[in-house]
Amino acid sequence: MPLSANNPDRTSWLHVDKNSDFPIQNIPFGVFLTRDDIITIGTRIGDTAIDLGALHQLGYFDGIALTDDIFLQDSLNDFIADGRKTWRSVRNRIAEIFDAENPILKGNKKHKEIVLFRLDEIEMKLPVDVGDYTDFYSSIEHATNVGSMFRDPENALLPNWLYIPVGYHGRSSSIIPSGIPVHRPQGQTLPGDAKEPVFGPSKLVDFELEMAFITTDANDLGEPIPIEEAEEYIFGLVLLNDWSARDIQKWEYVPLGPFLAKNFASSISPWIITLDALEPYRVDGPKPKKKQLPYLQSKGPKSFDINLEVAIQPQGSKETTVSKSNFKYMYWNMAQQLAHHTVNGCPVNSGDMMGSGTISGPTEDSYGSMLELTWKGEKPLKMADGSERKFINDNDTVIMRGYCKKDGTRIGFGEVSTKLLPVFGKK
Amino acid sequence: MPLSANNPDRTSWLHVDKNSDFPIQNIPFGVFLTRDDIITIGTRIGDTAIDLGALHQLGYFDGIALTDDIFLQDSLNDFIADGRKTWRSVRNRIAEIFDAENPILKGNKKHKEIVLFRLDEIEMKLPVDVGDYTDFYSSIEHATNVGSMFRDPENALLPNWLYIPVGYHGRSSSIIPSGIPVHRPQGQTLPGDAKEPVFGPSKLVDFELEMAFITTDANDLGEPIPIEEAEEYIFGLVLLNDWSARDIQKWEYVPLGPFLAKNFASSISPWIITLDALEPYRVDGPKPKKKQLPYLQSKGPKSFDINLEVAIQPQGSKETTVSKSNFKYMYWNMAQQLAHHTVNGCPVNSGDMMGSGTISGPTEDSYGSMLELTWKGEKPLKMADGSERKFINDNDTVIMRGYCKKDGTRIGFGEVSTKLLPVFGKK
Repeated sequence: MPLSANNPDRTSWLHVDKNSDFPIQNIPFGVFLTRDDIITIGTRIGDTAIDLGALHQLGYFDGIALTDDIFLQDSLNDFIADGRKTWRSVRNRIAEIFDAENPILKGNKKHKEIVLFRLDEIEMKLPVDVGDYTDFYSSIEHATNVGSMFRDPENALLPNWLYIPVGYHGRSSSIIPSGIPVHRPQGQTLPGDAKEPVFGPSKLVDFELEMAFITTDANDLGEPIPIEEAEEYIFGLVLLNDWSARDIQKWEYVPLGPFLAKNFASSISPWIITLDALEPYRVDGPKPKKKQLPYLQSKGPKSFDINLEVAIQPQGSKETTVSKSNFKYMYWNMAQQLAHHTVNGCPVNSGDMMGSGTISGPTEDSYGSMLELTWKGEKPLKMADGSERKFINDNDTVIMRGYCKKDGTRIGFGEVSTKLLPVFGKK
Repeated sequence: MPLSANNPDRTSWLHVDKNSDFPIQNIPFGVFLTRDDIITIGTRIGDTAIDLGALHQLGYFDGIALTDDIFLQDSLNDFIADGRKTWRSVRNRIAEIFDAENPILKGNKKHKEIVLFRLDEIEMKLPVDVGDYTDFYSSIEHATNVGSMFRDPENALLPNWLYIPVGYHGRSSSIIPSGIPVHRPQGQTLPGDAKEPVFGPSKLVDFELEMAFITTDANDLGEPIPIEEAEEYIFGLVLLNDWSARDIQKWEYVPLGPFLAKNFASSISPWIITLDALEPYRVDGPKPKKKQLPYLQSKGPKSFDINLEVAIQPQGSKETTVSKSNFKYMYWNMAQQLAHHTVNGCPVNSGDMMGSGTISGPTEDSYGSMLELTWKGEKPLKMADGSERKFINDNDTVIMRGYCKKDGTRIGFGEVSTKLLPVFGKK
C-alpha cells in the first residue's frame, strides 16, 4: 500500500504554522478526553485535535475494514493490533479528508463542530496500555561514558556490548504521559564511605533522553521474529524520559540490574508518530565495530534522523536547553532490538513499548543525561536564571522535544514535559 | 470480617479425597474454559470445578455487592480489584453453599448440572492478566549458593543483599499456566574460553522453584505502602517455575540484569490460593542478620509454612523428586517485598505478580534449581529410569507442587507442570 499520506506537496484546509511538528504529512495517533469528557482516539493537524471516533461514526472511514468502536477506546492497543495495512489505510484517508482540495468535511460546519477541538479543550492521555516495557542500552556513546565514569576508561564497554543489544525489563505501571508531575523518590543509598545504607530522598535525580517504539502483535510464545520482518511490527515512536535516581541505582543494581532507581516514573510524549511518517528520514546507522551474529545483521538504512533536545525549566524561570542529540546516533537499531528480544521466543504484543536507552551523541553537549552532561556533577550546568544544576532540583520541569526536517517538511513529536515535585507528602 | 471459610471442622457435600489439596477450607480462584467453551471464573473443591459465573447468575451470591459480570471474565483482575472485603464475603459464601449441612444447591439437580464440572471437562487458563511481573531474589541460601559458585565463597552475598529485598522486573507476556509446553530457547553464549560469542540452543536450561503473590490495586504513583498495610493488598499465591537459561544469562546479564535468559517462559499453577486460606500456616521467618531500615521492619509472623517439591519426568518414564523445600525459608517476606517495591512511589495494580526468587533451603536436597542441586553440573542427579541430569533435557517435564499441613487439614496448590520441547522448528 502506498504511503500517500506522506506526499510532501499536500497542504491542509486546517491552519498549520510553518514550524509546526504536525503538518498534514505527520498524522500521529493519540488518546484524549474531549470537552464533553468522552475518551477517544484522535489525531492532530497543526494545533487542531481531531476526534477519530466521531469521524468514524459520521462515515468518513467507510470502505476501510474497522469495527464500529475501534476509535472509541481508552487506548490504541486494538487499533494497533489491526496491523500495518489498516494503519496505512486510515492514515491515507485522514490525509485525504483534510487535504486543502477536499471540500467535504471542510464545507460541513456541523460535522466540524463535532470532530474538531482546540488543544486547550482536550486532555491528552497515555496513548497505549503498555503490556510490557523493555528498555535497551543501545547508544555506544552513553555506554562508553557510563563505563568510563564507573569502571575503566580504557575498557569502558563491557565484553558483551558490541555483540548484544543489551536490554532489561522496565515497569509498565509507572509510564505516564507528558504533563503528569513526578515526586522525588525515596530509597536506600550508601553515602560516600559509609558502611551501612541510609534511607531518604534521592539526591541525584536525573533524566534520560530516550525514544521508544510501540509494537503490534508480533509473535507467539516460542517463535522468533526474523530481523527482515521486524519493522513490520513497529507502529510508531514517542519521546521517552526514563527518570533515574543515580544514588539509589548505584546501591541496588548488582546483580539483577536497576529497579527502584527507575520504576518511579517513565514519561512519554502523548502522540505516537508512525514509522510510516518517519519513512523519509531514514539514514544509515553507525558501522558495526565487530561482526554481528547473523540474526542481528540488518540491511539498508534502519536508523532515523530525528533531532532531539532537552531543556530544564526552573520554577518561575525560563527554560535552558542542556542537550542536543539525535536518534541516528544509536548503535543498535530498532529492527535489531526486536529481533534480539524475540530470538528466544519471547512474545511481543500490541502496545508493548521498547525504549532505546539514553541517546548520547559524540560531543559533550549531546549527552542524554545530567550524569554525563555534568560528568557525575563535576561540571555543573548554568541555567538562564544564573542558578546551577548538577542533577534535577525539586520543582524543575524537564522538557524533551524531537523533530525531523528535510526538503522543507518537518515532522515532529511535540514534547514530553514533566515537573519534578518534592518527596511525597512534603512541600 | 471473620474467616469462617477457614473453619477446620467443616466438610462438604462434594467428595474430597483425604489427601486432596482442595478441601472446603481452601476455596481457590481460577479461570477456566467450560465444556461449553465459555470462559468463567471458578473455584474447586476436591476434584470438582465450580463455575462462579453460573452460581452468581443463579442468585447464590445475592446480598454481596458484586457486578453482574464480575465472574464472567477471562481474568480475575476486576474481582481482585474489588478488595479484601469482597473476596472474604465470596469465599465465606462458597463455604456455606458447599457445606455438608446445606441442602440448597446439594438438592437442586438442575443447578448442579449447570454449575459443577469434572476436571477433565475444563481447561485451566491464566488466572490473571499480569500487568507487571516482578521477581525478587529473597532466599539467602539461593543467593549464597550462587554467590559461592560464581564469585567468592567467603563473600558470597553482595553488600546490599542483607539490606534490600533485591528484585528486578520480569516479562509479563511469557507467563503461562501449567500444561503449556516451552521450547528450549536459542541465544548468544560465550563458550569456555572463546573470545567471541556463538548463537544456538541453550545448553543449560534450568527451572527455578518459586512462589508468587498476586496483588490488588494498592497505591497511586508517588505513594508508598507502609509495611503494616502491605498484606492487605495481597490476594493470594501461586507456584512459579521461572525458567532460566544459565549459559545465556551468564553472557548477557551485565550490567542490567537477566533478560532473554528468563523471558522465554515463566510457568504458574492455575489456582490462586488466597492469603486468607493460608492464614493458619503463618510462621516466623528467619531472624534478620543485620538491622533493617525502619520501612522494612515487619512485626509478627509474616512467613508461611508451605512444603514445596520439584520432580522431573523424562518422556515415557516415571517422575523423580529432585528437591524438597519450603516457602518459610525466605529471608525477606512478602510484606517487606511490597513495602520495598513501593517505597519510591511505584504503583502496584490488581493482577500484578511478584515472584519470591528461587526458594532454596539449608540442605543440599532442598535447593530450588538444577544449578544448585547439581552444583553447576558437577554432581548430576540420578533419575528413576537410570539416566542422569545436569540440567533439563528436551522432552523432560518439570513438575512443582506445594501444600500446607497442620492439625489434619491440608491446603495445597496443585501443581505447575511444564514440558520442555526442543528448539522451535526442530523435532
